[in-house]
Amino acid sequence: MKKHYLLTPGPTPIPPEVALKEALPILHHRTGEFAAIYKDVAEGLKYVFQTKNEVYTVAGSGTATMEIAVVNLLSAGDEIIVAGCGNFGDRWAKIAQSYGVKVISASAPWGNVVKPAEIEKALKENPNVKAVYTTFTETSTGVVNDIKAIGDIVSKTNAVLVVDTISGLVGQEFRTDEWKVDVAVSGSQKGFMLAPGLAFITLSEKAWKLAETSKLPKFYFDIKKYKKSYATNETPFTPPVTLIVSLQESIRLIKERGIENLWNDYKLLAKAARAGMKALGLELYGEVPCEVVTSAQVPEAIGGKIVKTLREKYGVSIAGGQGDLKGKIIRFAHMGYIGKADLLVGFACLEMVLTELGLNVEKGKAVAAAETELLRG
Amino acid sequence: MKKHYLLTPGPTPIPPEVALKEALPILHHRTGEFAAIYKDVAEGLKYVFQTKNEVYTVAGSGTATMEIAVVNLLSAGDEIIVAGCGNFGDRWAKIAQSYGVKVISASAPWGNVVKPAEIEKALKENPNVKAVYTTFTETSTGVVNDIKAIGDIVSKTNAVLVVDTISGLVGQEFRTDEWKVDVAVSGSQKGFMLAPGLAFITLSEKAWKLAETSKLPKFYFDIKKYKKSYATNETPFTPPVTLIVSLQESIRLIKERGIENLWNDYKLLAKAARAGMKALGLELYGEVPCEVVTSAQVPEAIGGKIVKTLREKYGVSIAGGQGDLKGKIIRFAHMGYIGKADLLVGFACLEMVLTELGLNVEKGKAVAAAETELLRG
Repeated sequence: MKKHYLLTPGPTPIPPEVALKEALPILHHRTGEFAAIYKDVAEGLKYVFQTKNEVYTVAGSGTATMEIAVVNLLSAGDEIIVAGCGNFGDRWAKIAQSYGVKVISASAPWGNVVKPAEIEKALKENPNVKAVYTTFTETSTGVVNDIKAIGDIVSKTNAVLVVDTISGLVGQEFRTDEWKVDVAVSGSQKGFMLAPGLAFITLSEKAWKLAETSKLPKFYFDIKKYKKSYATNETPFTPPVTLIVSLQESIRLIKERGIENLWNDYKLLAKAARAGMKALGLELYGEVPCEVVTSAQVPEAIGGKIVKTLREKYGVSIAGGQGDLKGKIIRFAHMGYIGKADLLVGFACLEMVLTELGLNVEKGKAVAAAETELLRG
Repeated sequence: MKKHYLLTPGPTPIPPEVALKEALPILHHRTGEFAAIYKDVAEGLKYVFQTKNEVYTVAGSGTATMEIAVVNLLSAGDEIIVAGCGNFGDRWAKIAQSYGVKVISASAPWGNVVKPAEIEKALKENPNVKAVYTTFTETSTGVVNDIKAIGDIVSKTNAVLVVDTISGLVGQEFRTDEWKVDVAVSGSQKGFMLAPGLAFITLSEKAWKLAETSKLPKFYFDIKKYKKSYATNETPFTPPVTLIVSLQESIRLIKERGIENLWNDYKLLAKAARAGMKALGLELYGEVPCEVVTSAQVPEAIGGKIVKTLREKYGVSIAGGQGDLKGKIIRFAHMGYIGKADLLVGFACLEMVLTELGLNVEKGKAVAAAETELLRG
C-alpha cells in the first residue's frame, strides 16, 4: 500500500503509457517489426540530442557509453583534458586512467562550475591533447557547465569535445551540433523518463576521424560494431527489446510536447524549487544551479536523517549528497516525469520532516513560495 | 491484431506475471526496498546456477559478461584455450584477441561438439594456459557440450574453466559447482524468460585468485566493483531496476516448478521437437543435440523462405542458420516460456509452410509425432 513519490535524479517516475509498453509481449529483435521501431527511435534520438549525426543505443548503464567514448577515441599514453566538477566529472578521469590514458585536469572544485578559460589554457599548454571530457549537468552537486562556451574553445583546436549529458539531456537546453559537441553520451533513466538499462552515444565527423586512430582494446564497446548494425536498423548484440519499445513511446511524448517547451517546463520547476528551498531557510548549493536538480545545504546534525525520514514516513524519495557532501546537502530532482504537483508534494512533506527534525520551519511557506513561481509561469 | 508466437532461441516469450512487473512504478535503486529485492534475486541466481558462490548482475547483453570473464582473468600476452563449436564459441576467441590474448584453439567444426580429449591434449602441450573458454549449449548449431567431462579435465590443472551458459541455463541440466566450472556467464532473455538487458556472472575461488593477477584494462566491466557493491545489495552503476524486479518474479516461477523439473520439461520438448522434424522428413543437425533448441537441415532452395513465410503468414518466429549455415538449417527453440502447445503450433504451421513451398509433406504427421512423444512424458 505504500505510495512512492520519486523526486530523485534518476531513475525518475515513468509515465504509465511508457510503463505499459514494457509489459507488451516481447518482439524478436531480428524482424522487420523491431527494425521499424528501432529506426523510429534512432530518428527520435537525433531530435532529442539536436544532432544530424547517428545516435547509437547500447545495453548498459550510462557509464557504459562514457567508457565507449574513452576506448573508441584514444590509445594508451594519449593525453586528454578532464574538466569535471563533481562525482561524474571525476568518473571520466577514472575511466581514462584505467586504460593508461594521461589525464590533465582542468577541473573545478565540487560545487563550482568548470571554467572555460581553464580549458583554453590547458589546451594551449598541452597541444597534443586528443580530447576534452566534461559534464553538462553535474548531478552530484547540481550545477550546469557552459558547454556552448567550451564548444567554442575546443572546436578551434584539434581536440574533440566529449560531454556527459546523462542527467541533463531533455531537462535543459542542450544542442549537440550547434554547440560544437563532438561526442555526447546519455542514459535512459533521466530526461527520457524510462527505466535504466539503455545508454546512448553520438559522434561527429571529427570524432569519427579520431576513432580511426584509437588503439585501446574493446569488443562489446566497439562503436564501429554499433555503426555497422545501425545501417540495417539493428544492434550488434541482443538489445533490451522492451526498453527500446518503451523508449519509442517516451520519445513520442517528448516530441508531442516539443523539446524547447520541455526545457522551459523544467526551467520553471527549477525556479520554484529554488524559491521553496530559500523559503525553508536553506541555502542553495552550487555556483550555477542546473535546471534538472536543486541542491540545498542542510544542517549536518540532521543531514543524514532528512532523506531517510522523507522516504520512510511519506514515501517521498529525494537524494542526499555524495562523497564529501554526504549529510551536507539534499538534492531535489525535477527531471523526467516530475511535474508541478510532484514538486509541491515534495516541499509539503519536506516542511513536515524538517519540523519533526527540530528545524524552525514555517509550515506552508515553502509550498507557497514554489506556488508563486509556478503561477508566474 | 497480428498474433505472435515466439519459438526463437532468445528472446523467448515472457510470462504475463513477469511482464506485468516491468510495468510497475519504478523504485529507486539506493533504497531498502530495492536492496531487499536485489538480495532475494542474488540468492535465487545461486539456485539457478547451482552454485554457492555469489552471482553478479550486470546491465548489458550476454556478451558483456563474456567480456567480463576475459578482462578480469587475463593480461595481455596470456595464453588461453578456446574450445568452441559455433558462432558463440568463436566469440570467446574474438573477444580475447581484441585484448591481445593468445588463443590456442581446441575447437570443433560447426555442428560437432567440443572433444574433451582435445582440451586435455591442448592443456598438456601448453602448460602456461591460464583459462579454458567454452560453450554449454551452442545455440547457433543446436548442440550441447559435455561440460562435466571438461570440468573434470580442467580442474586437475592450474587453468580455470569459463563456460558460456547464456542459452542453456535453466533449459538443460547445468551444475556450476558440481561440474567444477570456475566461471559461468548467462543472460536474461533465454531460460530466465525475461526481456534482454541483464547479464550474469559467477566466479569460483580459483577464478578470483586468477583475477588478482589480471592486468587487462577495465572500468565498467571491473568485476571487483560488482563484488564490492554486492556486499551491500547494490550494483556499482544504476541497475535496470524494472528488469531486476521482473527477474525476481521469473526466479520465483523457476523455483516454484523446481529446476530439476524444468530440465525434464525441456528434455521432453526436445524429444518431441526431434520427432516432429523427423516426421517432416528433415534430417536433424548437430552431433549431440541440446535440449533448448532443435536444428534441422532444410533444402537450400527454400531454406531462406521458411523462416520468413512462417513469420509473415502465421506470426510464428523460429530462427534460421547463422554464418555458413544461413539458409541450410532451421532452429526451433524450446527454452524459457515455451510450452507443449507452442511446440505443436510451430509444427502445424511449419507443415503448412513447407507444403506451400513445394515440399511433399504429410499434413498432421509432424504434429502427431510430437504429440506421441509428449504423451509418453
